[in-house]
Amino acid sequence: MDKHQVTFQPDNVSIEVDHGTSLLKAANLAGIDLASTCGGKGTCGRCAVKVKEGKVQDEAKGNLPPRLRKSGQVLACMTHVAGDVVVETTADTRLREHRVLTGNKGLLAEKQVDLLAGNAFQPLVKKLLLTLEPPSVTENASDLTRLEGELRKITGHQHFRIDWPVIRNLAEHLRQSDWQVTAVLADYNDEPQVLQVLPGHDRIPPYGLAIDVGTTTVVVALVDLESGRVVDQAGTYNRQSRYGDDVISRMIHSTEENNGLRQLQEAVVSTINDLIATLLQRNNIHHTRVYLVVSAGNTTMTHLLMGSTPRYIRLEPYIPTFTRVPTSSAGELGLNVLPAAPVLNFPSVASYVGGDIVSGVLVSRVAESEEPVLFIDIGTNGEMVLGNREWMVTCACSAGPAFEGGGIACGMRAMDGAIERVEIDPGTHDVRLSVIGGGKPVGICGSGLIDCLAQLQTAGVIDRAGKFQHDLPTPRLRSVDGDMEFVLAWASESGVNKDITISESDVQNLLRAKGAIFAGIRSLLHMVSMEMPDISKVLIAGGFGNYLNIHDSVAIGLLPDLPPEKYEFIGNSSLKGAEAALLSKPAWLKVEELGRMMTYLELSVGTTFMDEFVSAMFLPHTDLSLFPSLLDQSSLKKASNL
Amino acid sequence: MDKHQVTFQPDNVSIEVDHGTSLLKAANLAGIDLASTCGGKGTCGRCAVKVKEGKVQDEAKGNLPPRLRKSGQVLACMTHVAGDVVVETTADTRLREHRVLTGNKGLLAEKQVDLLAGNAFQPLVKKLLLTLEPPSVTENASDLTRLEGELRKITGHQHFRIDWPVIRNLAEHLRQSDWQVTAVLADYNDEPQVLQVLPGHDRIPPYGLAIDVGTTTVVVALVDLESGRVVDQAGTYNRQSRYGDDVISRMIHSTEENNGLRQLQEAVVSTINDLIATLLQRNNIHHTRVYLVVSAGNTTMTHLLMGSTPRYIRLEPYIPTFTRVPTSSAGELGLNVLPAAPVLNFPSVASYVGGDIVSGVLVSRVAESEEPVLFIDIGTNGEMVLGNREWMVTCACSAGPAFEGGGIACGMRAMDGAIERVEIDPGTHDVRLSVIGGGKPVGICGSGLIDCLAQLQTAGVIDRAGKFQHDLPTPRLRSVDGDMEFVLAWASESGVNKDITISESDVQNLLRAKGAIFAGIRSLLHMVSMEMPDISKVLIAGGFGNYLNIHDSVAIGLLPDLPPEKYEFIGNSSLKGAEAALLSKPAWLKVEELGRMMTYLELSVGTTFMDEFVSAMFLPHTDLSLFPSLLDQSSLKKASNL
Repeated sequence: MDKHQVTFQPDNVSIEVDHGTSLLKAANLAGIDLASTCGGKGTCGRCAVKVKEGKVQDEAKGNLPPRLRKSGQVLACMTHVAGDVVVETTADTRLREHRVLTGNKGLLAEKQVDLLAGNAFQPLVKKLLLTLEPPSVTENASDLTRLEGELRKITGHQHFRIDWPVIRNLAEHLRQSDWQVTAVLADYNDEPQVLQVLPGHDRIPPYGLAIDVGTTTVVVALVDLESGRVVDQAGTYNRQSRYGDDVISRMIHSTEENNGLRQLQEAVVSTINDLIATLLQRNNIHHTRVYLVVSAGNTTMTHLLMGSTPRYIRLEPYIPTFTRVPTSSAGELGLNVLPAAPVLNFPSVASYVGGDIVSGVLVSRVAESEEPVLFIDIGTNGEMVLGNREWMVTCACSAGPAFEGGGIACGMRAMDGAIERVEIDPGTHDVRLSVIGGGKPVGICGSGLIDCLAQLQTAGVIDRAGKFQHDLPTPRLRSVDGDMEFVLAWASESGVNKDITISESDVQNLLRAKGAIFAGIRSLLHMVSMEMPDISKVLIAGGFGNYLNIHDSVAIGLLPDLPPEKYEFIGNSSLKGAEAALLSKPAWLKVEELGRMMTYLELSVGTTFMDEFVSAMFLPHTDLSLFPSLLDQSSLKKASNL
Repeated sequence: MDKHQVTFQPDNVSIEVDHGTSLLKAANLAGIDLASTCGGKGTCGRCAVKVKEGKVQDEAKGNLPPRLRKSGQVLACMTHVAGDVVVETTADTRLREHRVLTGNKGLLAEKQVDLLAGNAFQPLVKKLLLTLEPPSVTENASDLTRLEGELRKITGHQHFRIDWPVIRNLAEHLRQSDWQVTAVLADYNDEPQVLQVLPGHDRIPPYGLAIDVGTTTVVVALVDLESGRVVDQAGTYNRQSRYGDDVISRMIHSTEENNGLRQLQEAVVSTINDLIATLLQRNNIHHTRVYLVVSAGNTTMTHLLMGSTPRYIRLEPYIPTFTRVPTSSAGELGLNVLPAAPVLNFPSVASYVGGDIVSGVLVSRVAESEEPVLFIDIGTNGEMVLGNREWMVTCACSAGPAFEGGGIACGMRAMDGAIERVEIDPGTHDVRLSVIGGGKPVGICGSGLIDCLAQLQTAGVIDRAGKFQHDLPTPRLRSVDGDMEFVLAWASESGVNKDITISESDVQNLLRAKGAIFAGIRSLLHMVSMEMPDISKVLIAGGFGNYLNIHDSVAIGLLPDLPPEKYEFIGNSSLKGAEAALLSKPAWLKVEELGRMMTYLELSVGTTFMDEFVSAMFLPHTDLSLFPSLLDQSSLKKASNL
């Protein structure tokens, strides 16, 4: 088969590919990560590139905005190499470093108590400095028997798991420093595991990794298991994104593509390994000093990390292969730490309520609260838990990728260049923007979109159903190909040399997203016969949550109309829970119990959710009595206008 | 570096090697197994070959009998390639198919009771045919939870070990035959392990392997774990022999050679794999149908199989790395059966009393006997156990390789061409021989050597101290290079065109070997304050034991002078014990208890053994009162001569 050279600019990276290879695949092979929400199906319109030189076969289909097509751009996934080509990529189609919630970094000793969320400090790995009696002709027990005897004496445990890689070196390691050795013990269940026996008394602390495997971003924390200190953290986007932005497109990729499952597993493992390499290098730590990994992710992410098909998570009746996750090892998964290091995963509750939520519930101490608490994690899915020390109910509603920028023409994730705050002058319709990183805007992220929706309504640009007014005296409002849109930033002001807009179809997508989440909350309350005011506290988790404007979120009917003091942002609780588990055996043992304690509400059963969803497709809702504070304001406003 | 071609005849196999490679190494690389007792140190004189063409550098040292040197032979280990060469190997330097004890093959159902040695039939692996309730939106437990629930119901166990290779295919396998599956369960400890979940109700029986890993030979039995039938067996020499014949030279090789340990492990694994391939092909069984391996070997063999250094077994105070052997898996060891198949090893008692002896004790039911029983396994080492249902003592004495043909000029193992019976006419000194396989003799094996010793004494050729008479009127007796020797077969009668002889130094080696074993038995009796007649039964195990002439063995003072009916040959009890364990969980659970129950007597502590050894270096012994039946015979003989 003919081979052609594809060069990507501005990176100037070249790769040789077969005739007919798509530019998206060529980019993947070259290590250029193009945004692709749909996984290469031509529907998301995110992977636009410009062919500067050379011959391609363009299928001329797929969802590419006409103005991009006119400017010579093509969809990388729909364009196939037919000769040596040079391709230019633009800033808004490239995945870049995310704004990643790291928190906790460099915690001071006295603050570690918080990290443990009320659990005793009892790290899952400890080093034991042993001095054994040397053997003699009359005291001739085997090396292993001798070691186990000493471990029994010191730990009180009767049995230990000791695998062959440790035993194979045991004879030499015991004798190298005259029967002084350091045993590294992982203690997370009934039978402690000897991970390593080092010659001499080794004083380097043992390390562990806490990992939050998100659909969008992956964060790894390096934890000193002796002092309990979070030494360092690093995060980046999940390299699986090249196969699709959301869990659904990844599931499809894993099922329908040759080797799709393996590609996805390798992508997330290499993402984690890159972060591990960064952390270990930055802190000058050898990889064999990392003895345990605790990972939290949603059910699909956990299946993909473990190399298990997520196929039946997607198909009715939505059954995961596992919820409790049997222990694996770093070596088995290909993680670059000590190969024998156990890899513990937080258990899932169901197909769409995963270990990340269980981890969040652990650190936010929902199960210890007297009063009902609402825990909510807003991402592509909105996952929520309502409960107290006696009961917990949970559900997941498919919000769609709108809040992560998916399905929105100028949408993007929360990274440099994203509009995160919007103000629209109700009189002049002038716009003031706040952009992540402070530069020129290239798109708009979730928190910006919520602001935008609230501001568009306040400014009278859209009505309660999200329909655009047609007769406002501003050039920012216009009709393009029959779709109304509002210009947030002109091409001249933007970082991508094109207008940044929000259209009526964008607004409909956002209404569906916020409606789904609100309907989910209402369904949980309905299940336990409660009303909004019964919620004593709302804990908002996740990367997106942290940048949320509560007032605007209530104004658009995304969040319940409760006093601001009832809201609390808890950041990346998935990661924090993993850190807590690393440092506390009681916390880790509690985790499985938490998973079992939660009652899962499948929203597709019955009509409650659908009814609630339809009612929530308005700004803020069809039933305004659910939003008393807005009524008050609007009464006040009306009163002041009189 | 220059490369040369080495061609071995009569096989006509060629191999390209570096300049300077020894012919022994070249032979190993070419897959030609030359006998080498010393492991290539030039001391055993076993690897003689003839260079027919080409240039070699002969170090002209090493222990090569002058007559072989005169006939143009060289030691392969001391001769290095200096050009393309053609080498001829002779029958007596080649390792060949051993006479291997197989027993049991094709047992009838009613005879399987014997195989179990009194233990309940409860195979370590069973297949469970399951029919699960399909999930629904309301009954939405995960696949794993569903499977575990059914297993709990059926087996009564609460927890199961299920590894990732099984979980990864679980979703598809459950759905492939509409929630009918076959679970293969290994049940050998507290937590049964699910080894495989196959779609549908699979009716092919599960298989297991019992392996006897001997220093000299390896035997594998294929066992149907449903019917309990030993389907087939195969045995061959241990490929480690190319690195030395006995455990000591293997230990040295593993420690002193680069990669020595790995070479030895690979050698025994490839030996086992070849036997597995033979068995599976012969019986048309796929390797993934073999679910469990039980192996028994001496302590050094077990260390080498597991890839663990035997270094400290050899050095005082003789400490093995392990006695109890943690479970491994076929995949970890490289055995070509289902990779997840557990590999269970019989525990050792000490460095020189291994799992083969524990296995023998299991099947010979020593620990169930009312009266004291002596179990004895004669090989390079003589290992013995004395005991009853209340106590067991054990020791090992280094008999040296004489009974396996090592250190004896014309010695060889029990294979085709070996003299196994000798009769010498006391008047004419004519010799009658019996040869394994019925052809011309090429050497003499252990049972032949014992006969020979007894017959030489009876015929007056040697005295009680093993010294040769000088003045017998027979051309068979002669002095060569100052050493007396007796010709058993003339060159013209032999299969190797040279005289087959036994010399005075051979006799001294044999006296040391038999003296060590007898002294070991006496030391055990001494430890428990017993005398020979207190032994109710002598169980003789092992390949060599089976061909032993009891009368001659008593006559030379190798075995105690007890009535013949107290002796019993139990064959390859190491293999039989492994078979029993495969078929009986109670038997396997008893094994660890047996290992702990035996008190090990280290013969190098104290003077008892040494005193006994010196006294036993006569024919039959310095203390003739220990051999009353011989005294009677000799009195009778003297009386009849009067």
